[in-house]
Amino acid sequence: MSQNLIKNAAGRAVPTEVNGKPAIPFQGVGKYRPTGHKYGPPISTCADYPADGDKRQPDLRAALIAAGLRDGMTISTHHHFRNGDLIANQIFDIAAELGVKDLVWFPSASFPCHEPIIKHLESGVVHHIEGSMNGPLGKFASEGKMRGLGVLRSHGGRYQAVQDGEVRIDIAVIAAPTADFFGNANGLTGPSACGLLGFALADSQYADKVIVATDNLVPFPCTPWQIQGNNVDFVVEMDQIGVPEKIVSGTTKITKSPDRLYIAELTAKFCDAAGLIRDGFSFQAGAGGTSLAIGNYFGQIMREKGIKASFARGGSNKYLVEMLEEGLVGAILDGQTFDLDGVRSMRENPLHVNTSPFTSYNYHGKGNFASMLDIAILGATEVDVNFNGNVVTHSDGYLLHGIGGWQNALFGKTVILPIPLFRDRIPVIRDEVTTLVGPGELIDVIVTERGIAINPLRQDLIDATKNSGLPINSIHELKEEAERICGKPQPPALADDIIAVIKWVDGTVIDAVKAVNNE
Amino acid sequence: MSQNLIKNAAGRAVPTEVNGKPAIPFQGVGKYRPTGHKYGPPISTCADYPADGDKRQPDLRAALIAAGLRDGMTISTHHHFRNGDLIANQIFDIAAELGVKDLVWFPSASFPCHEPIIKHLESGVVHHIEGSMNGPLGKFASEGKMRGLGVLRSHGGRYQAVQDGEVRIDIAVIAAPTADFFGNANGLTGPSACGLLGFALADSQYADKVIVATDNLVPFPCTPWQIQGNNVDFVVEMDQIGVPEKIVSGTTKITKSPDRLYIAELTAKFCDAAGLIRDGFSFQAGAGGTSLAIGNYFGQIMREKGIKASFARGGSNKYLVEMLEEGLVGAILDGQTFDLDGVRSMRENPLHVNTSPFTSYNYHGKGNFASMLDIAILGATEVDVNFNGNVVTHSDGYLLHGIGGWQNALFGKTVILPIPLFRDRIPVIRDEVTTLVGPGELIDVIVTERGIAINPLRQDLIDATKNSGLPINSIHELKEEAERICGKPQPPALADDIIAVIKWVDGTVIDAVKAVNNE
Repeated sequence: MSQNLIKNAAGRAVPTEVNGKPAIPFQGVGKYRPTGHKYGPPISTCADYPADGDKRQPDLRAALIAAGLRDGMTISTHHHFRNGDLIANQIFDIAAELGVKDLVWFPSASFPCHEPIIKHLESGVVHHIEGSMNGPLGKFASEGKMRGLGVLRSHGGRYQAVQDGEVRIDIAVIAAPTADFFGNANGLTGPSACGLLGFALADSQYADKVIVATDNLVPFPCTPWQIQGNNVDFVVEMDQIGVPEKIVSGTTKITKSPDRLYIAELTAKFCDAAGLIRDGFSFQAGAGGTSLAIGNYFGQIMREKGIKASFARGGSNKYLVEMLEEGLVGAILDGQTFDLDGVRSMRENPLHVNTSPFTSYNYHGKGNFASMLDIAILGATEVDVNFNGNVVTHSDGYLLHGIGGWQNALFGKTVILPIPLFRDRIPVIRDEVTTLVGPGELIDVIVTERGIAINPLRQDLIDATKNSGLPINSIHELKEEAERICGKPQPPALADDIIAVIKWVDGTVIDAVKAVNNE
Repeated sequence: MSQNLIKNAAGRAVPTEVNGKPAIPFQGVGKYRPTGHKYGPPISTCADYPADGDKRQPDLRAALIAAGLRDGMTISTHHHFRNGDLIANQIFDIAAELGVKDLVWFPSASFPCHEPIIKHLESGVVHHIEGSMNGPLGKFASEGKMRGLGVLRSHGGRYQAVQDGEVRIDIAVIAAPTADFFGNANGLTGPSACGLLGFALADSQYADKVIVATDNLVPFPCTPWQIQGNNVDFVVEMDQIGVPEKIVSGTTKITKSPDRLYIAELTAKFCDAAGLIRDGFSFQAGAGGTSLAIGNYFGQIMREKGIKASFARGGSNKYLVEMLEEGLVGAILDGQTFDLDGVRSMRENPLHVNTSPFTSYNYHGKGNFASMLDIAILGATEVDVNFNGNVVTHSDGYLLHGIGGWQNALFGKTVILPIPLFRDRIPVIRDEVTTLVGPGELIDVIVTERGIAINPLRQDLIDATKNSGLPINSIHELKEEAERICGKPQPPALADDIIAVIKWVDGTVIDAVKAVNNE
């Protein structure tokens, strides 16, 4: 496919049209001003719904037919079941049986368990995927095999796109660990409990037709209702909607790698030296092994100082829950629960609050929670010498990861990326990121096992940590150190064809992803 | 003012235009089919809101100015503070000081405490009121003194009108018993605690600008957030936003009137005889003295039978809370708390769930809770021999009451009106209601101290209670009995001018209210 490209405000060549619709190039952080009104879905009437509230359909197939499934529709799913989802594949298997073509799949994220969708991409049942493609689907797209362009959005960007009417969902299928026949649903209980359903909120509010699929139907009223039955058209009871052990892990483990533990310790020491850990501060760490260790170090520092955090943002896990229960954090504002302790805590503790991309991340709202965080700890596949970040492609050009909440969390007051200097002998700090996902002006600190680099824009942090004794270097020094060890990395072998675009939090296109040249 | 009238499906002459906008005449229950899309408010961007989340303005005046208050705007408030509200009057006092004219006040209800608004209606600051006018404002309108037409909607109809874009709120002012600086708010704690804020939900979701006013500012995050800060533009801290003893009563009392107790007992016995009180049934009673007594009788019957209700709809009160705590009802789905026990229970008990007109009553949704109720107990100022009901005007024609959730609750499976045969020697059962608010086809049973009348449409109830020994009469017999005692009532002395319209739950006009002829 040939594409008209334009250079955006970040200097990246991006298409002016994406899947047949005009696209706005990135204009700089906070520069694009939206106009117009939020999308309003069609007005329903209770006259069309059963007065007794019972919206059950015999099975998913019947519900999809009742919802009017047909060629070219946009079908959405959520990813709270992560790699344990059993619903998305069934939807497109049914669509294939029904002879439906050219669907757009609009998941909040896709996982390796969705590899079977490849056959539907190949056969024409699915035209393309808008949403992160973790693993095999990303590889498939990177090889130039997907008909349409992939569109990658952050969690907040996905809410924004739906709210603003950029993406109109025809049918949303919401897998719900617990639901009643009216469609009230939550993720707190049942065999597939995942804690919350925030990633499906936009879908429930804005999709034309909403199907709730559950393997734990309870009598009305299902409370609390994280998804409101008043937005739901059909309810389907199924034997199993997810694989519990792949939805949440029974245990979440702190890293045992000495390098990573050292990075975690250095990150916590940096925050302390910079004066960021003070009474009433707030942080978001995440659930990777390094992040967990950082959270633990934060806890130690708080105990020593006799202070507490006002709130922490989850991905929640056992360690964060322990801090809440110990009183070290005032509240967990949680976007997804990563282990069973997180699920339990959200079910039992009113201070463990379920949030959504609307509350936390939507940039086209009247503020959001992300910008209120004192410390945001994030990862990256690559960072460049201008502090630009990449989280979606590897240095070989393969699109293998989603954005998640990463772009949204960049709006935190201090954004720190604890990353190894190299992975598999490939340096992580580059002259230029393969794919630009986050502008360097929003990334404040890089912490590696060989030193810390502070963005020159953050003179306050440079001053505060000047005499801290911490190993503070320039980012160029860190890059050179990595290249001394691993050698100068080769640029990826890329074709000219664009296979996906990366949206910024405001719906503009910040970069494009090229196909990997396999020849 | 001269008005073009048309006869609607209920045979009532209604205007085809209301306050300059076309109005659709009532077409029958479930007959009007909405078209088009829900209203979408303007798209915001976080770039316009403080990154640290602090949206405070120095005072209400500053917030109203910041919100762009100007001539002709529609300003909304909620009525969770009932007759203890201290906010609405201040808004219009400020508007008067600023020289603003022709505002539309769109309260979810107004009360006698809002009598000071009359001077703003007279001076031109307020053009007219859309919303119930309990007491003095209703009298003012009935005397033909309001410039525009009053528009009365049910709680669900108000949500529908806002959702569908019939009413566009320019500025919503939400009085909040507890809030943080970001605008997250709830009604659970603080000196003005009112339990919940569901009547302000539509306002928060759809108004262009939203101001939260609180006398209990708490550190972020205010949880739970019944109103989401992400919908809020400005926050104002005030000394006092409500008069606690007028917001909730410390005690709610069961009637001591022998007649009313008898009506209550008869109502409960009827429900029992008709087989409506069975394990897992649901009911909505209300908070009047008679309703409380009916709830109590329901409790006695459940205890005797060893059964429980699946849920009860509130207006909650001490007695309903006791039933919840005793396990006699599985959950309270509550639209407003009527006493301090209701507030406490909602704060503490996860099974005491806060609802909104969206969940419970909106007819332009994908179903609502109202139609799922087995028994709805409601009041009326008048009923006619065709079982039509009036709740807004007295038999002298004065518009003195709002619709509340009455029209919405008519969709319950069995609707019972326990009413006295006469009030102040004026018969309640008439040849024709002064104002048609609810069509007779939705009203099933009238219970008076002199007998019970069953709507002939409900042959099932007639059959079930045939041999019950209960005093079952025709509605004509009841009417004749009242007239034997009180004499045939005179029709009200009405002028030709229409002063208000009554909207049905779907936004159509079911009746018009005429001015009272005082000459």
